[in-house]
Order: sequence, then C-alpha cells, then structure tokens
Amino acid sequence: MKVVCLDMEGVLTPEIWIHVARRTQIQELNLTTRDVKDYRELMERRIVICHKHGVTLEKIQGYISELEVFPGAREFLDWIRERYQLVILSDTFYEFAGHFMRLLGRPTLLAHNISFNAETEKLEFFLRQENAKAKAVQALRSLNLRVLAAGDSYNDIHMLKEAHTASFFRAPANIREQFPEYGNLQEYSELQDFIAQNL
Amino acid sequence: MKVVCLDMEGVLTPEIWIHVARRTQIQELNLTTRDVKDYRELMERRIVICHKHGVTLEKIQGYISELEVFPGAREFLDWIRERYQLVILSDTFYEFAGHFMRLLGRPTLLAHNISFNAETEKLEFFLRQENAKAKAVQALRSLNLRVLAAGDSYNDIHMLKEAHTASFFRAPANIREQFPEYGNLQEYSELQDFIAQNL
Repeated sequence: MKVVCLDMEGVLTPEIWIHVARRTQIQELNLTTRDVKDYRELMERRIVICHKHGVTLEKIQGYISELEVFPGAREFLDWIRERYQLVILSDTFYEFAGHFMRLLGRPTLLAHNISFNAETEKLEFFLRQENAKAKAVQALRSLNLRVLAAGDSYNDIHMLKEAHTASFFRAPANIREQFPEYGNLQEYSELQDFIAQNL
Repeated sequence: MKVVCLDMEGVLTPEIWIHVARRTQIQELNLTTRDVKDYRELMERRIVICHKHGVTLEKIQGYISELEVFPGAREFLDWIRERYQLVILSDTFYEFAGHFMRLLGRPTLLAHNISFNAETEKLEFFLRQENAKAKAVQALRSLNLRVLAAGDSYNDIHMLKEAHTASFFRAPANIREQFPEYGNLQEYSELQDFIAQNL
C-alpha cells in the first residue's frame, strides 16, 4: 500500500524544452520550471516563442523522439514496480511524454494536454488542474496509500510537501538552498536506498 | 487525461480462490464476491476455512503461480496503455497479485494486504479502506481525469457507478439482471471498442 511519485524531466529523462532550444537554436526556450516558478506563465512564454519561430507540435515531437531516457532509469523504475506502486507526476504533456513512456515500460503518468491549432498556428495547452502534482499526492493519500515523492524543480515542492516522505533528486543548487529540508540525491542507487529505508 | 479502471479477477485473470478450492479440494472455498456481497465477511469465512485445512499464504502463492492470465489480456492492456492511463482496482491482495502483475507488464494496482501469522497459523488481511474501488474512482475524478470502469462482480458496482462511463465484462447472469443499466461485454475486442467510443 505504498506508492512512489516521481517527476519525469530531470529525474528520468532529459528536459524536453532544453533539447528543443538546442535543436531549434532558439536561446529563449532554455527557461524551465527550475527558472520560472509559475508554470502557466512559463508555458505562455514558450508558446509565444514557438509561434514566432514556427515551432509546431509535430516538430517538437520529432525532437523528443531523438532523446533517450537517462541511463539506468528503466531499470530503476522496474525495481520500484516490483516492490511498490509507481505514478509519474509531470507538468509535461501526454503528447510530449509518449516516447519516454514507451522507453520506460508505460508506467502510469499524470500530465497535461497540448495541441497545435493549425488556424492560429499556435500551440494550445490545457492544464489538467492547478497544482496538479500536490493534488495527485493528496488523492493517493485519501486512498490510504503511503506516498514517497522525488523531484528536482520548483513545481515539485508542493508534491514533496504533501508526501509522507520526500527527497530532491539532482536538484540545482538554487532550489536546494531555498528548501534545505529535503535531501538531494544524485544516483538511482541512492534514491533506491532512500525508498527502501523510508517508504 | 483519461483513465481506464479494470477489475482484475474475472476480467484479466482467473478467480484466485476458485483455483485454490480446486487445488486444495476444499469445496467451501468456491465462494467469491459474485456470491457474497460483503467482502470482509467473505474473507473472514475464507480465513476460518484456510486455518481449518492448514492453507498458508505460501501455499496459496504456489497455486497462483500455476495460473496464466486470460488469453489476450496482456495485449488488451498494452493497447489501453498506449492510449490512456490504466489502474487495476482489485479487492485482491498485493501478495496474491504479484504473479499476475509480472505477466501483465506491471500496471498500477490498488489492492489490499494479506499476511500469514505463524503463531496463530491464520491468514490476516488488511483492507486498505472500505469501498476501496469507488474511493479510487472518486480520487481519480478529483484529478480531473475522465474515468471508464469495467468489472464483473458485486464489489465492482460502486466503481461502475462512480465512473463517467462503465460496463460489465463477463458478469454472471444474476448480477447483470440486478443492474441492467450496465451492458455486458464478453470479448476484449468489444471492451476495446467500448473504450474507444466512450472514453
């Protein structure tokens, strides 16, 4: 009756928008939730930038398909799934994450939706709900599940707070310093030990 | 933002206790949630019977490991998981279901716990919560997910009622007649069509 909640980008996979920025050579797309706390604001900025440069959903999906998950991520998830339940809580979009979910053996993912409006030539995103990661942890707790959470970004803080036990994983220094109550693990083997000892 | 909730036994796998009854030749173990509506009462009866006949958790796990999932069940779940999220909602126990979850590619499972007390020589079960399947659907709905549910037994009725859209799958006649508002599908291909059209 234990569930592990993991962020996706930065924990299991590379940051999608960083890769899109690299491939399109659009410097402005390098911002992530590590830099801008308000996710809706961040996405709105990205959409304006994509529109300006003709970046469609199809193009982004093409760039994503070039990426691999982090080395050891699949094995790490398989280890979790043999012992506990697993839910990936991500502020990415199902339309982006499909490639990674295939590589990771299709764990359960709670994310958002995005589409491309051919008339306006703009991306349109639909957030499932505000503060979605924290709400998901609350919902899991309402089912009498014990929840362990790990993430690396500002948008993970409320998820970490709602969980019974939590840790940062590969979080950048500025976030770690703001929230020193969470440890910061670097390797899957360390996170595995943390889970085994705390969940 | 769509999730399929499926019962396990009778929908994806054989009924565990029916198989235990066959292998132990204990006729009284043939009762299931199809026959006795109150699950706690049913389990308490099973535990008394197991104690009387020396049926341990290890023995039950051995019998379960002889079973296969239903033909086509894995492919059916793979089809769902390519398109939607999937959660198995079962009143079985994690300690029973591990074998089947391996065969099914480790989908997310919400179930209960059971253990064997070596001193009393009795099975001890711990239900995660009362009306667990319905609570799980409510929790998923609180995350703005659209929920489709399918099951075959009395203990699935509240799950079907809470879901946005629902159907029986291979339900016996007595249950279908009591709840004629739900269709009753027989093949995975039919349930697949139902999901594609209604979720």
